[in-house]
Amino acid sequence: MHHGIGFIQDLAVVMALAGVVTVLFHRLKQPVVLGYIAAGVIIGPYTPPFQLIHDEQTIQTLGELGVVFLMFSLGLEFSLRKLVEVGATAIVAALSEIVLMLWIGYEIGSAFGWSPMDSLFLGAILAISSTTIIVKALADLGLKRESFAQLVFGILIVEDILGIAMLVLLSGIAQTGELSAGIALVTLGKLLLFMTVSLVVGILVVPRALNYVAKSQSDEMLLVSVLGFCFAFCLLVVKLDYSIALGAFLIGAIMAESRHLHRIEHLIAPLRDTFSAIFFVTIGLMLNPAVLVDYAWPIAVITIAVIAGKIVSCGLGTFLAGKDGRTAMRVGMTVSQIGEFSFIIASLGLTLKVTSAFLYPIAVAVSALTTLFTPYLIRAADPLTRRLGHAMPPTVANVFGMYGQWLGSLRPASGGPTVFGLTRRIILQIAVNLAIVAAVFLGASYGAPYGSRFITGWLPSEPMQRVVVWSAALVVSMPFLVAVYRKTKSLALLLAEISVQPAKAGRFTSAIRYAISDLVPVVSMLGVFLLVSALSSAILPPTGLLVAVLLVAALLLAVLWRWCVRIHATMQIALRETFDEQPDP
Amino acid sequence: MHHGIGFIQDLAVVMALAGVVTVLFHRLKQPVVLGYIAAGVIIGPYTPPFQLIHDEQTIQTLGELGVVFLMFSLGLEFSLRKLVEVGATAIVAALSEIVLMLWIGYEIGSAFGWSPMDSLFLGAILAISSTTIIVKALADLGLKRESFAQLVFGILIVEDILGIAMLVLLSGIAQTGELSAGIALVTLGKLLLFMTVSLVVGILVVPRALNYVAKSQSDEMLLVSVLGFCFAFCLLVVKLDYSIALGAFLIGAIMAESRHLHRIEHLIAPLRDTFSAIFFVTIGLMLNPAVLVDYAWPIAVITIAVIAGKIVSCGLGTFLAGKDGRTAMRVGMTVSQIGEFSFIIASLGLTLKVTSAFLYPIAVAVSALTTLFTPYLIRAADPLTRRLGHAMPPTVANVFGMYGQWLGSLRPASGGPTVFGLTRRIILQIAVNLAIVAAVFLGASYGAPYGSRFITGWLPSEPMQRVVVWSAALVVSMPFLVAVYRKTKSLALLLAEISVQPAKAGRFTSAIRYAISDLVPVVSMLGVFLLVSALSSAILPPTGLLVAVLLVAALLLAVLWRWCVRIHATMQIALRETFDEQPDP
Repeated sequence: MHHGIGFIQDLAVVMALAGVVTVLFHRLKQPVVLGYIAAGVIIGPYTPPFQLIHDEQTIQTLGELGVVFLMFSLGLEFSLRKLVEVGATAIVAALSEIVLMLWIGYEIGSAFGWSPMDSLFLGAILAISSTTIIVKALADLGLKRESFAQLVFGILIVEDILGIAMLVLLSGIAQTGELSAGIALVTLGKLLLFMTVSLVVGILVVPRALNYVAKSQSDEMLLVSVLGFCFAFCLLVVKLDYSIALGAFLIGAIMAESRHLHRIEHLIAPLRDTFSAIFFVTIGLMLNPAVLVDYAWPIAVITIAVIAGKIVSCGLGTFLAGKDGRTAMRVGMTVSQIGEFSFIIASLGLTLKVTSAFLYPIAVAVSALTTLFTPYLIRAADPLTRRLGHAMPPTVANVFGMYGQWLGSLRPASGGPTVFGLTRRIILQIAVNLAIVAAVFLGASYGAPYGSRFITGWLPSEPMQRVVVWSAALVVSMPFLVAVYRKTKSLALLLAEISVQPAKAGRFTSAIRYAISDLVPVVSMLGVFLLVSALSSAILPPTGLLVAVLLVAALLLAVLWRWCVRIHATMQIALRETFDEQPDP
Repeated sequence: MHHGIGFIQDLAVVMALAGVVTVLFHRLKQPVVLGYIAAGVIIGPYTPPFQLIHDEQTIQTLGELGVVFLMFSLGLEFSLRKLVEVGATAIVAALSEIVLMLWIGYEIGSAFGWSPMDSLFLGAILAISSTTIIVKALADLGLKRESFAQLVFGILIVEDILGIAMLVLLSGIAQTGELSAGIALVTLGKLLLFMTVSLVVGILVVPRALNYVAKSQSDEMLLVSVLGFCFAFCLLVVKLDYSIALGAFLIGAIMAESRHLHRIEHLIAPLRDTFSAIFFVTIGLMLNPAVLVDYAWPIAVITIAVIAGKIVSCGLGTFLAGKDGRTAMRVGMTVSQIGEFSFIIASLGLTLKVTSAFLYPIAVAVSALTTLFTPYLIRAADPLTRRLGHAMPPTVANVFGMYGQWLGSLRPASGGPTVFGLTRRIILQIAVNLAIVAAVFLGASYGAPYGSRFITGWLPSEPMQRVVVWSAALVVSMPFLVAVYRKTKSLALLLAEISVQPAKAGRFTSAIRYAISDLVPVVSMLGVFLLVSALSSAILPPTGLLVAVLLVAALLLAVLWRWCVRIHATMQIALRETFDEQPDP
């Protein structure tokens, strides 16, 4: 029991100081996060008189757990349903914010004569606002239930997704040194594929498993199961070379569809609070106050740029997406800071050894300053709107008013399902099923080298091994292939119905329609076959054997067609049920 | 973000397997703890095919956090109030259990030809029952609110305290190789002193501080403050060379007196469940199944000894303390297993390198087996009592019945405060105040070498340094010394009142009474002075200076007497208030 004293001492120093600081900053009405960072600086290696931390590595490891629990909680608050509600506006606002801030950051970096990589990472650091800070500030001000707050949360969700895409892209750029459009497309495509398949498979499996566990009423069992899923999924994600932050966020988003969401949130909160405190303290540990003095000038410039840039970009985006000026101003003022995501991006740069050492402390300093201003900015939004309204020349006000009216007139009258709505829905279904098929074949290709070790014993021939693996992938993906075929056929029928009008085609109408609805799916399936072949080129059997496999598969398909349709329908219903279920209060 | 994959992988393996196992064992209606240990064995280094854990050290460290949180939760459930209610019975039962099991364990070890140290540790391993298992089993069987369960919890509390004393004594014996009565007394005296002072000072400070923090309604703040106190205190305890388990238990017991107990329990539960799962898995990690086969015979013998020995010793103790036969049987059957404390003691032996390697796996195996039987034994208690009642010859039954009646007749009729009650109370108060005085001087002696570094600058003379430190200690302990004096005086008055009766002493009655009540305190204070001098011999000033210090102190005392009385009264009231406060629901 007497070993590991160093570790306990570190933890004691971190937690005791965090405890004092959380109370102190609460009294000063400042975000506790700032206090944690300050505590980290105090006990850190750069400030005299004592070197209080002995085993910085272990504390860093615990801090990483903080990232996992922070992103997991963020995922739990993520909701596909909520995202759809505020969807369009949130996407426009978030995109305009990220693009503008990336550009501003890059330009500032270049103006200071930093390297292109430093400038790029600076742009990425400035792009994403801090969900933690915003949620906390809005809760403190009692504004969490207002409609503009809902919109802000929507923007934050979109930012989280785009931020994760940015993490992946930045890793790619950092490793190859450049951003080729092709690589970016492939990277984003893979990410999208991975996210789609994880979400679909996860939502099919995880909430059901948790429902079963939750029946026992034992909090311990539920918690350990939740953590089991969380870490297992994180491990899978890390093995696929994505960041653990992405994994934690995705599995959180999957569990957000569970009926027991509120119980899970309740159980995870203490873990999140404990380890995120450690995480923020470790940020302070890495902060060298001397650097802040050396870089006082860039810090000041960047802070002003973040506040002004985010108010303008996000506020304008919100306004352009059709909200009134007051809401736009409140949204812009609320998101005008950077936070945990910026630290993650900054530490990514450090880990990959592509950014200079000064970037991290600058990010922390700018985050601290902007966080400091956040509550005041939110409170200042309404007075500022009024003052702007008075100061604005009537003509300008008129133009703004007309823009709003014009947008309103563009919106379709709501009614029954439109052709556009139906089409969109079918296309979405086809895409999801295609994603699953692609994932199955990609997974088989990735897994084949490991699997071949086991098969080699009773099947030494390499081509035959390919046949076995490829056939297995084909059988697994069969229900989804059938679904793709059927959905494509209904899409073709629908489009034929619209595009081929009796007025033009005369008595050939129905013949042409049938031809289209028969031909399109067959051609599509050929395309699917080519796609699958390309994805699974590593395990594609030689042509002769491939033909044989396809023939057998065709026979099998004829026998199993009904079964495939049933299986797929069951899964689809299960998915919809999970989505439609409201979490228990 | 990509470093530390090994750690995440370990955690993922541990948590994922723990998740599966918790569900499986719940279905099999077996304690989850067994499942965790089994999971540990599976992923452990002794079982093929894979070596699944990479960084065993980090997982072990996290497991140690499990011990901290387990003991802290145990402390939170500890209640001085509850202990007083079932006090006498619990103490008799726990003592008879621990003494008998220590003896049985030692004898078994000797019979198998093990070394005396192994045999001693075996006895200690068998002595303490498992709070976790019992609480869980009683909750599962729906018996948690029954009166025998309350008694069991009382016994467990006494066992926890005695167990901690045993930990301290065992460390001492292991390091010196022998148990001298003197060292044992000093060790236990120091432990008692430390526990008393910690509890008094802690209960004065911590619940008040937590009340202040809790006003904010922020769970995060409360949790971080609680953890801050917990780890800071653990650090202090570890620095004083006690086990971290003791520290966690004590600070838990201190927080149990907080008004916000239930909120704290709620916040700590997820941390405890997570890390205790890891702790139990690490126990499995250390378990070599081959050892179990080699030692099948001792394991079987010890398992039977634990079950039979605990039923007899604890049941008999309960009966002798005046409970009926059915309650005694139920208590005995409930405590018939060993658990977490046994692992802590076994790992202490390993850490100190005084026990053989086979002791740990034996402890784990016996714990697993006895845990397995616990629910069945609890359920079997009532039928067994009935059968025993029928099978018992009437004469024996009569003797048992008469014993109960005799005990009942011994009990004093309840009424107003008795002289005995009053005396006991004053003596307790004197003891607590003396403990604080002793702690102040001991603390000053310990701290002097560190302090002298700072003083040396402006006070190079070593004797003068002693004067400063000793005087400081005297001033700090003055309110408590005054209290000791005043309480001794009232005790002397009370005793004089009783012992000196007018019938005997005649007209000298009041004179003798006054003489006693004046003399006794003065003599006592002389004794206190000698005690303090002995405790602080390291910093006691030379005689000449000492006399000067004492004269100044006497002058100071004359001036500050009222202030000392007031300060002490304030503290006493504050302490009583905290005790009397019921936790919020």
